[in-house]
Amino acid sequence: MRSDRVKLIGVDWGTSSFRAYLIGSLTAPLDQIESNRGILSLGPGEHERALAEAIGPWRAEAPAAPILLSGMIGSRQGWREAPYVRCPAGLDEAARAIVTIKTKSLGLLGVVPGVLDDDGPGGPDVMRGEETQIFGALAALGRSDGLFVLPGTHSKWANVRGGRIASFETYMTGETFAALSNHTILGRLMTARAKDEDAFAAGVRAAQGLQKPGELLHAIFMTRTLGLFERLRADQLSEYLSGLLVAAKIGAASSRGAGAPVVIGAPALVSRYRDAGAIFGLPIETAPDHCAALGQRALLEAWRKPA
Amino acid sequence: MRSDRVKLIGVDWGTSSFRAYLIGSLTAPLDQIESNRGILSLGPGEHERALAEAIGPWRAEAPAAPILLSGMIGSRQGWREAPYVRCPAGLDEAARAIVTIKTKSLGLLGVVPGVLDDDGPGGPDVMRGEETQIFGALAALGRSDGLFVLPGTHSKWANVRGGRIASFETYMTGETFAALSNHTILGRLMTARAKDEDAFAAGVRAAQGLQKPGELLHAIFMTRTLGLFERLRADQLSEYLSGLLVAAKIGAASSRGAGAPVVIGAPALVSRYRDAGAIFGLPIETAPDHCAALGQRALLEAWRKPA
Repeated sequence: MRSDRVKLIGVDWGTSSFRAYLIGSLTAPLDQIESNRGILSLGPGEHERALAEAIGPWRAEAPAAPILLSGMIGSRQGWREAPYVRCPAGLDEAARAIVTIKTKSLGLLGVVPGVLDDDGPGGPDVMRGEETQIFGALAALGRSDGLFVLPGTHSKWANVRGGRIASFETYMTGETFAALSNHTILGRLMTARAKDEDAFAAGVRAAQGLQKPGELLHAIFMTRTLGLFERLRADQLSEYLSGLLVAAKIGAASSRGAGAPVVIGAPALVSRYRDAGAIFGLPIETAPDHCAALGQRALLEAWRKPA
Repeated sequence: MRSDRVKLIGVDWGTSSFRAYLIGSLTAPLDQIESNRGILSLGPGEHERALAEAIGPWRAEAPAAPILLSGMIGSRQGWREAPYVRCPAGLDEAARAIVTIKTKSLGLLGVVPGVLDDDGPGGPDVMRGEETQIFGALAALGRSDGLFVLPGTHSKWANVRGGRIASFETYMTGETFAALSNHTILGRLMTARAKDEDAFAAGVRAAQGLQKPGELLHAIFMTRTLGLFERLRADQLSEYLSGLLVAAKIGAASSRGAGAPVVIGAPALVSRYRDAGAIFGLPIETAPDHCAALGQRALLEAWRKPA
């Protein structure tokens, strides 16, 4: 028997990854699982079996524990669509919009909705899964306001006011980096990438020097000429491009929020944001671990609260 | 016999294209050839034969006409390297740096150098071939100052002062568009592209609304959400992205120059710049046809001038 009682099984189920947490009353989960069985790897009708296989041992141990799923699993391309809740969206709004799935093998499951910001200047913006991590960071930090950053393929920058996600923007940082590195002339000069603080800083400073939006397309091309003219070595070029794209976003988004941005993510990614922030003179706060699991537990409590 | 006497055979020889002009004293070339035998399609030692095959009939007709080659053919990856001349670079500076190749089948050839701007804020910048088109536009328009734009994979924006290319910047517009359309999630919602003025204008207006450089990475992501939320149809999405990237560059670069930018390029591309410029309230001037051939003729005259 575990010393901490199981309160919840939480699953952060994304496009290309599956992460599940056995959640008790402590900050750290009792147990966790990670695999590459994201929704893109599953066909219609395969979700229940995949989930049952993954969390079967936990289910046997805690047959009555509720199960919450967050992330792209609640999208139209997932298992069951949980329609977006609109900004401003806090725990109560999200919990009220949890959609349930009745299963034979696992009982009732709750699917956490994504969040829609339909008031941004550029058009509608959406998140699925990140809202749960933000709720977890708020709970862990004991905060109800701040700017929260989730780096990645489609990075999110979210403003939180009074415990609710007031607005957010998605930046196509990671996927633009990958497309430019792998599918343009820039990649031809790049050799294997190694962490290089000087080259990363050169990219950050290039972003700092930009005055207007489209100049980013010029600074991107400099990845090539800095290599051609041997101002940077071939193994530094992807670090330059990474610093440029990360910092362009920091420059664009940082002024929108209040105080030091809190970055939620893998340590290696967070440290890049800290490095870039330092050059901008912008302190970057690192979120506690286990934000997804902490957010799922907070959502469970809000879901169970009498209306 | 032709009514106009042949003065020059000019070749604009790029990475993926070969364009040759039989040039007389009139504005329009006497004849022209275009093929896909760019330098990437040729191995070492294959250039002379490829050129002789392409322009053989012209050579028979005008055995003494000089031959000038401009474009990537003069790069390290081309036939013979013609080192860059530095900004400010006009006809005289470029002509003095023409490199010659002695050939058995075609006699002496001149290779036009590219231009290097090593004083830009972001790093060194280079062009090869575009300088010749700019010289041609200056000759055709009877100008010695202005802002000249060459749209494409790696778009060039060049400031000309006193007949010399004073500074320029490369924007990775076309290649970024292709990489994002073909190798990111944005392409999944896109269907066959058709010219769509409304969607293109929506992209231009999105660029106008940007405040800071990195916001471009957000507006790029909107290509997806505008499709998901059916604000644009699937066949409109690439037009939005095109308008966004073209206009981001116009916003960034237009304030650097003087007066209406002169766009040198294929009519379809130029009309997109006119459409975007109209939304910005920026008049766009269309360059005359045959700028490459006109520039080659002007370079020939400068080359022959006594030092």
